[in-house]
Amino acid sequence: MLVEHETEIRVRYHETDGQGHVHHSTYFNYFELGRTELLRAAGKNYEALEAQGLFLVVSEISCRYFRPCRFGEVLSLRTTTVRAKGARIEHAYELRRGDELLAEGRSTVACVDQEGKVNRLPGWLAGK
Amino acid sequence: MLVEHETEIRVRYHETDGQGHVHHSTYFNYFELGRTELLRAAGKNYEALEAQGLFLVVSEISCRYFRPCRFGEVLSLRTTTVRAKGARIEHAYELRRGDELLAEGRSTVACVDQEGKVNRLPGWLAGK
Amino acid sequence: MLVEHETEIRVRYHETDGQGHVHHSTYFNYFELGRTELLRAAGKNYEALEAQGLFLVVSEISCRYFRPCRFGEVLSLRTTTVRAKGARIEHAYELRRGDELLAEGRSTVACVDQEGKVNRLPGWLAGK
Amino acid sequence: MLVEHETEIRVRYHETDGQGHVHHSTYFNYFELGRTELLRAAGKNYEALEAQGLFLVVSEISCRYFRPCRFGEVLSLRTTTVRAKGARIEHAYELRRGDELLAEGRSTVACVDQEGKVNRLPGWLAGK
Repeated sequence: MLVEHETEIRVRYHETDGQGHVHHSTYFNYFELGRTELLRAAGKNYEALEAQGLFLVVSEISCRYFRPCRFGEVLSLRTTTVRAKGARIEHAYELRRGDELLAEGRSTVACVDQEGKVNRLPGWLAGK
Repeated sequence: MLVEHETEIRVRYHETDGQGHVHHSTYFNYFELGRTELLRAAGKNYEALEAQGLFLVVSEISCRYFRPCRFGEVLSLRTTTVRAKGARIEHAYELRRGDELLAEGRSTVACVDQEGKVNRLPGWLAGK
Repeated sequence: MLVEHETEIRVRYHETDGQGHVHHSTYFNYFELGRTELLRAAGKNYEALEAQGLFLVVSEISCRYFRPCRFGEVLSLRTTTVRAKGARIEHAYELRRGDELLAEGRSTVACVDQEGKVNRLPGWLAGK
Repeated sequence: MLVEHETEIRVRYHETDGQGHVHHSTYFNYFELGRTELLRAAGKNYEALEAQGLFLVVSEISCRYFRPCRFGEVLSLRTTTVRAKGARIEHAYELRRGDELLAEGRSTVACVDQEGKVNRLPGWLAGK
């Protein structure tokens, strides 16, 4: 299973806030995009998981912001699978503009069924 | 069935964009809130409709913007049911800051079932 | 000046709502992306306009929805400049998934200065 | 200076995602609302700070999610100032539905000037 992927993101206007910068909550949408694209790059897709009645829910997420970014800028997001075991996957994120590190994030997603009960990751997701 | 309702809305920071104003797409979220609150004020709720396997989907919506608004401002949204017949409800919206008219909107929502097929409005929604 | 442009958009998870479809307000963010990309494809950019102290504000926008779309789907948005004269630009939008027309939109943006006063479009934007 | 405040939040439809729950990035918008309302309850407001040329930017934020919430539910958010010293304010958040703890968050905001340089908190914000 692929453990690292880089996605290019161009900032959209509605993602900025009154300070003229990308709003801090938007970074979590970028991280989600990073997880999706990492999965897709590995030849998998999240839709297939949902079709199986399984869902990935975020159980913990964080971000540290070093520099702001603005509308129209092209960013590069590196998403890394740090660990995928049991019912959980941990990811790390680095958001850059060229060489500059703008933000770093970290998350844990848990696999649950339709009732919200925690469920072992399917083998193809755990990478086994 | 109640046909008019006024909702107070205080602008949240993340709703603003790089121009320092509420982003134009946010008005449609306000209108949705207006429809929800109109329903609630009438003693009904949208959740009950979904529990019945019916959904209201927007089939047409528009907004004209006269003046911008900013973070922290308190707005008043008047939502009016213009027509509720067959499978469709039409609403009109007026967003004000004090006496100033900031924007006017209009929408049509259609009642559909889980497969997306158009469905007569339940009697309590059609106001019969 | 280029008058038509096609942008590919892949639906992001956070753009969906509780019905499992892309939320209707998201289409206006797609349309904004369409305007941005049309400008960029013409070798211009919106940032340059703001640097000049001019802003494009939406004065009117509408959308008609024919079919829903879902997370992960790849859509194609065609943005057309219908008219660019005086202080206003009118655009039309068609959002498709393959051959299927999902939605159609229309908008008018007005050029304003920092005080919000309406301003003639700069020549390069009016296409003269 | 007031160090704790409770805000009632009713979930809006567009805040839900394809799983039928409030999207995890939305919690950060709730937390921002909590900070705003804590300030307002203390008789201050963020707009005044910006008028002074100072801004609060998020430098670190995190959330742990215990249970999902849904459209129409009424939540209660407790925002606590943990520390306000130098150029930084730390907040803690607890989001509840009745007695149930849904999520816990934590953030650090930094005071910066228009150029983004870190700036001592004004006395009224540091609570001195």
